Parts: sequence; structure tokens; C-alpha cells
Amino acid sequence: MTSRMRAEIGEQPEALTRTVDALLPRLPDLKALAQETRQVLFIARGSSDNAAVYGRYLVETHTGRLATMAAPSIATAYRRRLDLDGVLAVAISQSGRTEEIVETLGWARDCGARTVAVTNGEGSPLAEGAEVALITRAGEEVAVPATKTYTTQLAALAVFTLGLGADVPADDLRRVPDEVARVIALTEESPALPEIVEALAEVPGTVVSGRGIPYGTALELALKIKEACYLHAMGLSYADLLHGPIAVVDERTPALLVAADSGPTLAGTVALAGRVVGAGARAYGIGGGRALAGACSAALPGPALPEWVAPLGLIVPGQILVENLARRLGIDPDVPRGLNKVTQTH
Amino acid sequence: MTSRMRAEIGEQPEALTRTVDALLPRLPDLKALAQETRQVLFIARGSSDNAAVYGRYLVETHTGRLATMAAPSIATAYRRRLDLDGVLAVAISQSGRTEEIVETLGWARDCGARTVAVTNGEGSPLAEGAEVALITRAGEEVAVPATKTYTTQLAALAVFTLGLGADVPADDLRRVPDEVARVIALTEESPALPEIVEALAEVPGTVVSGRGIPYGTALELALKIKEACYLHAMGLSYADLLHGPIAVVDERTPALLVAADSGPTLAGTVALAGRVVGAGARAYGIGGGRALAGACSAALPGPALPEWVAPLGLIVPGQILVENLARRLGIDPDVPRGLNKVTQTH
Repeated sequence: MTSRMRAEIGEQPEALTRTVDALLPRLPDLKALAQETRQVLFIARGSSDNAAVYGRYLVETHTGRLATMAAPSIATAYRRRLDLDGVLAVAISQSGRTEEIVETLGWARDCGARTVAVTNGEGSPLAEGAEVALITRAGEEVAVPATKTYTTQLAALAVFTLGLGADVPADDLRRVPDEVARVIALTEESPALPEIVEALAEVPGTVVSGRGIPYGTALELALKIKEACYLHAMGLSYADLLHGPIAVVDERTPALLVAADSGPTLAGTVALAGRVVGAGARAYGIGGGRALAGACSAALPGPALPEWVAPLGLIVPGQILVENLARRLGIDPDVPRGLNKVTQTH
Repeated sequence: MTSRMRAEIGEQPEALTRTVDALLPRLPDLKALAQETRQVLFIARGSSDNAAVYGRYLVETHTGRLATMAAPSIATAYRRRLDLDGVLAVAISQSGRTEEIVETLGWARDCGARTVAVTNGEGSPLAEGAEVALITRAGEEVAVPATKTYTTQLAALAVFTLGLGADVPADDLRRVPDEVARVIALTEESPALPEIVEALAEVPGTVVSGRGIPYGTALELALKIKEACYLHAMGLSYADLLHGPIAVVDERTPALLVAADSGPTLAGTVALAGRVVGAGARAYGIGGGRALAGACSAALPGPALPEWVAPLGLIVPGQILVENLARRLGIDPDVPRGLNKVTQTH
């Protein structure tokens, strides 16, 4: 049995190439907006919110600008104006049609912010309402769990950060599509894949952790496990995990740990794996090179990419894990219960 | 059997009175800082982070200033300077000795921010390192799950927001201690308490949801359930819940829904209760008046307080629920596994 979700996972290398090609020429537009603002405010929900978490760490670590997350209810429920002078508001929505996000970006503009949209919906209300629209080229996505629309959002946010003057080479982005293709092949032939699928099929829930630039990947993997496999899955930075929820990790609750092959949060992720395994629970790694794999009960390979673009490949073994786990649990990964492709929240 | 946690829950009315009395005279100091800044950035972890979520909604809804959450790893792992000119950084830590939080507030100052500390640790490094230290008067807290240190943090943040010019009467804060005492009594005699305890004792996990000003309460209740009862507990705004994780809610996963008796997010919380119950799952309410109680399978009473100070009482039925559930599960609520009173993260 093959699913649309699996097919769309495989379409990511091409979707990423198209998106990077289409968006790198927009750097001058972004530079102009950057000169007139001093900080970034992300507006998003769901998978797009997890992409925004990547964006906020990327902007802060590589441009020196403050980058934080908006609370949409201030706009849509409380209808309170804020002083957003000097703020560059970046709204992210796969469809570009989630009313809450469209409304909140309009509110940000009315509050004095400059505006950017990241969306796969060319001509959508979100794209039309922003000063600069970064249109991802994922193509049509049919499966409810976002895969290629998510990774192309990450690519758009990497380009966005370059536009803000990030101190990293744009060429790193060109290496991503081939690495994603390589990670797909490596994951599917890894003996760790069926081992982790079987382990997760037997437990009520899991904890998913990472920190810094890979933190958004942990959140996104947790969301996918919840929505497509109906498991309890807590996405947490490892700093937050150690502040209480570590009590949940036991022989019935394995931890999934996500890290890039390099960067200042790798050592802490490896240390967390040691703590989890030492306490008699299982830790499963995704990425983090030999260091993380060696500290874990089993591990899936991550991309060989610099930390700043690693999340574009790091979610991919997780996507494959979710697609396999859903089918193992008798769930059609393409249409999980209770969800629609365009989510409307107000 | 009685626990320290239960005793400390009962000490909250006095602790709140002491804290409000001690902190209201600090309004002029806060007003001076407010005049020299334009936005707020909170720095916290764990229960203090959930208090910060209350603070960020309070500041945004009632002062018109942008208020967002810092990512401490930017300071402590990436060691990257940001432009924080015009930012008022507010660090929150029960002990005032969590190194990560002390270090991140120092980093914020070095990046150009003005600084406030909210802590129960008089003379602690956090208090000594801030321009204005709002010392809560919780007294000594022995049980690991924070109760009176958490609600007094909320009181400090309410005073903080008044210092920033919030459009609400300070006298509302004076009503809080009596309401907390009343909610404790009402909760302990409520037939819903044993019903919800028994229901949660039989399931692997729960979802805890609220939105806007009560959202931090939902996060804090979820954290308490994880750390003291080892259940999977996802804290989510109901907007985020509808974006995927709603798939998890079923007959084995009840939802705990938290709302103030008034305010613009009450209607959405009531609607969510209807959706959960309509789907064959159980919804348990905390607060939200008759509207939420009527839509839920069972409900605990909340405080009769205006929305802006409701969270100071709204967590209290949740604290009692957690203390009872822990004992029902054979866990000593005072010393859950894997946790220390002062959490060190780096």
C-alpha cells in the first residue's frame, strides 16, 4: 500500500529546487523591507507555526535581530491594537486562506508593521495582502499532513533570513534537495525504521525534543505524530523537558531526540539521550551524527548539512516514520480523523 | 494523608495578600522603566514560563505594547547578541537561582534592554542583577510542584502591567485572596472533583486547552499533570488544538478546558466543549461560569473575578485536582520522580 503522503515526501527534492530558484531573486525586495524595520514578528498556526519557530531561531542566530511569535488572539479575539512600528510581520500559511492568519496580518499592517507572506497559495488573500509574498513552489499537496508545503516554507524562511543579511552562504541552500533525496533513501533502508515504528506502535505516547535551530523540527514531528498517529506526543525543547516533563519519560514513554550534525545544541541533546537511556527509557535519535546515534537506543540518519539549513532535511526521516507508523496502526495517513486540509480558526 | 502541596495550596490567600501589599508601592519604579521602553520580552522556564504567558497576554491586551517570549538558547547556547534597544526584559524564576535565566537576563542587559526580575528569592542573583526586582512573598515552598510561588508570580505580573499603564482598576487585585479561598472550599466540596480524578486515573493522557488570558493557566495545569501525575498532558490554545491535535481527543483522551467567567475567548471555549462532547469524548471544565459548565461532562468552579486577574484563581481548582490525582495514582505529590526544586538548565 502506498499513500499520497509517501508520494509527496518523495516530491520534496524537486519542490525545494523550484522554491529556492523562485525565491532567491526576491532578495532585493526583502533587503528593502529589512532596512526599514528592526525586528521580526511571526504569525502562524499548526505546521506553519513550527516553520516559524525555525524562522525565529534562524533570524536571531544569524542576523542579530529580535524575532518572536505573535499571539493571533490579540488581533482576532481581543481586537487590541499594538504599537508595531519598526516591526516586520511575517505571516505563514500553506493555503494562504486561513482567515485567522489573513486577519492577523492585516491587523499587523494597521498597527504599523511592514508585511511579508510565506504561502503556497499564489493569488491567495494572504499573498495579496502582503507587501512581499514569498510563494513556495510545493505544487498541490493532497495528504492532510503537510510535508512538502512545510519544507518549502522552511526554504522560504531561509531565503527570508538571507534577505535580512544573514552571515551564511546562500549556496548551502543549493545542497538541500540532493541531501533530502539521500535522507529519504537512507531512512527507508535503515533497520532502525521498523524498530522505532514497532516501539511506538506499543506505547500511548512519546516525547519529542530538540533545541535551538532544530527545535521547530521537534515540534513539527510531535504535531505529525499527534495528527496522523493519534499518539500523545509532546514537543519540547530539552531545556523545557528538564523543567518538569522529564517525569513522564519512562519505559512506556520513549523520547525522540532531534539534532543537527553540528551546532551548539548538539552536545546537550546527546547528554539528554544519555540521561533518558540511563533512566531505563528508550531514546531514538534523528540526525545528530555519530554522537547522537551512539547515545541512543536506535537512530535515523539526518542530512549532512550546516546547522542553519539542517531542518530542511531533518524533518524528512520523521515524515517517513509517521507515514509508516500511521499505516502500522491501521490509520490512512492521507486523511486522519477530524482534520481538513485548510484549517479555519478565528 | 495530607501533603505539603495541599498545605501550600491553602497558603495562597495569605501569600497573595502579602505579595500585592508589598508590590503595589513599586508602581512608580515600573512607570519610570515603562517610559524608557516600548515593548516587553519575557525570560522564563517551566511554571515561570507559564506565568510569563499570562504576562504577555495581559500586557498586550491592556497596555497596547508588544510583549513576547525570549528564546534563552540565543543567549546561553548560541551566545549571539541581539539589538534589544527599547526592550523591557522581564525574567521570572521562583528561586532566582536558575543559571540559565540569570545568564539570559544579563545578556539582555548587555544587548541594551532595561531589566525587571520577578522572583521569590530575595537577595538571589536574579533579584540582584535587575534594575527593578519584584519580590513575591510566597514564603518557603517545599513541595516540588509550584503552587503559591506560581500564583504570586501572576500577582507580580498583574502589578507589573499596572505599572505599564494598564486600563484596569488596581482594586481588582484586592479581591483575589478571598476568591482563592472561596474556590478552594468550593472545589473540595464539588462532586465533580472525585469524578474527574477517577476519569483521569483511567487514561494515559489528556489535552488541556484555553485561549488568550487563560491560556497560561492551561499550560500550567498541563505541566502539573505531567510532572506530578506522569500523564501525557498537552497544553494548547484551542486555536492550536483545532490545527491538528484535535485528532488525539477520543474516548480515551478527555479534554480539560479552562476559561474565565467573561472575556472574548469564553465563547470559543464553550464551542470547543460542545465539539469534544459531540465527538463522543469527555470535556471537563474549569471556570467559564454556567456557559462552560453546561457544555461540559463535569466542571469545577472558577473564581468570580474579572478576566484580567482570573488566572490567579483559575489555576487553583487545577492544583487541587493534581494533588488528588497524584495521591490516587500512588504518587507523593511533594516529590515527583526526576525533579528538584531548583532546576538547572544551561
